[in-house]
Amino acid sequence: MPSHPKSKVSRPKSQKAYAAAGVDVDLGNAVKRGIQRLVRETHGPEVLGKIGGFGGLFRPDFRGMKEPVLVSSVDGVGTKLKIAFATGRHDTIGQDLVNHCIDDIAVVGARPLFFLDYLASATLEPAVFTQILKGFAKACKAGGCALIGGETAQMPGMYLPGEYDVAGTIVGVVDRAKMLDGSRVKKGDVLIGLASNGLHTNGYSLARKVLFDQLGLTPASKLEGVKGTLGDELLRVHKNYQPLMAGLPPRVLKAAAHITGGGLIDNLPRVLPSTLDARIDVGTWKVPAIFQHIGQAGKIDPVEMHQVFNMGIGMVLIVAEKDVAATLRHTRGAVIGRIVPGGRGVVRLEGL
Amino acid sequence: MPSHPKSKVSRPKSQKAYAAAGVDVDLGNAVKRGIQRLVRETHGPEVLGKIGGFGGLFRPDFRGMKEPVLVSSVDGVGTKLKIAFATGRHDTIGQDLVNHCIDDIAVVGARPLFFLDYLASATLEPAVFTQILKGFAKACKAGGCALIGGETAQMPGMYLPGEYDVAGTIVGVVDRAKMLDGSRVKKGDVLIGLASNGLHTNGYSLARKVLFDQLGLTPASKLEGVKGTLGDELLRVHKNYQPLMAGLPPRVLKAAAHITGGGLIDNLPRVLPSTLDARIDVGTWKVPAIFQHIGQAGKIDPVEMHQVFNMGIGMVLIVAEKDVAATLRHTRGAVIGRIVPGGRGVVRLEGL
Repeated sequence: MPSHPKSKVSRPKSQKAYAAAGVDVDLGNAVKRGIQRLVRETHGPEVLGKIGGFGGLFRPDFRGMKEPVLVSSVDGVGTKLKIAFATGRHDTIGQDLVNHCIDDIAVVGARPLFFLDYLASATLEPAVFTQILKGFAKACKAGGCALIGGETAQMPGMYLPGEYDVAGTIVGVVDRAKMLDGSRVKKGDVLIGLASNGLHTNGYSLARKVLFDQLGLTPASKLEGVKGTLGDELLRVHKNYQPLMAGLPPRVLKAAAHITGGGLIDNLPRVLPSTLDARIDVGTWKVPAIFQHIGQAGKIDPVEMHQVFNMGIGMVLIVAEKDVAATLRHTRGAVIGRIVPGGRGVVRLEGL
Repeated sequence: MPSHPKSKVSRPKSQKAYAAAGVDVDLGNAVKRGIQRLVRETHGPEVLGKIGGFGGLFRPDFRGMKEPVLVSSVDGVGTKLKIAFATGRHDTIGQDLVNHCIDDIAVVGARPLFFLDYLASATLEPAVFTQILKGFAKACKAGGCALIGGETAQMPGMYLPGEYDVAGTIVGVVDRAKMLDGSRVKKGDVLIGLASNGLHTNGYSLARKVLFDQLGLTPASKLEGVKGTLGDELLRVHKNYQPLMAGLPPRVLKAAAHITGGGLIDNLPRVLPSTLDARIDVGTWKVPAIFQHIGQAGKIDPVEMHQVFNMGIGMVLIVAEKDVAATLRHTRGAVIGRIVPGGRGVVRLEGL
């Protein structure tokens, strides 16, 4: 977290006018200090002690790399936030965001180095903010990623009471020669789908419209085939696939696609050579019940379902036929399709 | 900008259900494509061609550096956004954010490498978003910083119509031996203040309360001593001081403090050794009229004014007495104070 490590300044006891305008500087600092221990636990030897707190300092260890490439990505969690607001559970959102960002850079073969968060609200509720920041710290620690900076913005009149927005930026590294760029993808290669943990962070505006507005459900509702409450299901944490992917033998992974907004249909073509298509057999994995409920109740076209939601597949790996067995053993994924000649670099969904 | 470089997928013509839920995927992509040229103009040879668009790829050139340290920072522009909303001028906000971030890492001696933006709203208004993104691109190009990634989030029900929030993350680099850490600051060193360009990005909640709510002014109002309209004044772009600072002879700059939220009182102590104080004579520079209007009309304690606003000083440099003349010539700054023994690492304002 950023901040003011030295507060021993000759200032008035309280900032009366600023507080009256809705900004509580002391409270913000107190929340940040409260989670300093958690943040420090994410710091390895590459993180240098702070100087003044203006910027995070990271001395990267690029030993063993010939040509380090920094891979960065920024994201939010969309209206999954509305589920956190409705349930009062704020400890998962930060984990969603960190894991989403890690997956976004893992698809080019990068490992995470550091993460910075942005957290904005109208007024700062210490208990809520502490929960959110704990989520960031928890996922950063689990993902081997230093939580090196953050901004906690108080913007009176910009957000509804009790609401907030979060954004996160990750920076990772990959040796250029090991960068996954899809160039080794060939006809006959196999698509291996790794199971998602629910909706992850995409499609929530549509899911909420169908489940809450149309069906009149609440986060406490139970749905057939869905474990726990609807709130539990909709808050399940976005999976971090990077450790699994990094654990594959060298050069086995030819390409990978993180299935986010746009689903299989929009995300897989990003890593396909333009001369090849991906043929996916949608009968090869069990679509989780939550997606079936949304699709049926919302009378949503099955193709659109596969373009808005991950439909149970959070990451797709592309490997050679000879490496399929080893990859399945290591990842517990499923063969969901194959690379076929086609010449348009598109996804063909079979069996809808 | 991130995105979907290959849209040639077998998908339905429009995403009917998703659009009905308030998310227009095609429009978002169109806006991003529209500014691709501007974004590419910020890219030097260190930016590698995109792979799938999941992450930005930057191959840093650290030649000549012994121990490169990555310096990162994340920020927003606070409720300065409300001035953009009120005036309908959205081309400056992105510049504010980029320059603010550059200044935050310049204080440890870092030069910017790349920047990522986050832009969230309820609905995507193409003309507005194009303006905002142009602001990012303009300041990145001027600051020698690659605009390497971004997220444009549509969150129905989270933001008011016509409103949005922005956040930005910067990553820069400094050779560890050249890092400014305040350790060379000594008794008798001189504080040189560099003029700000108005409020920059801090204190807007209080400024708006006094100027608009209490005084009943509008962005079209004229104020004595203020050039242009009040809207013009409140939208003036946060200055980028990094080129000036980088242009000083080696080792002249001992420390620097970016005067943001917390003003001189909270920001300068961040870089002071705990055995020394900073004595600032507030009569040594002309406080711009806008701050005088806010302070007088709001009946705000002068100390609090110096803790909420920059009061006309956007950056403070600390240099040895012998280097003062050269620094003033190069930066056109003003001597505003001196480092004195004191033992608390605080700012003492004289002449209030």
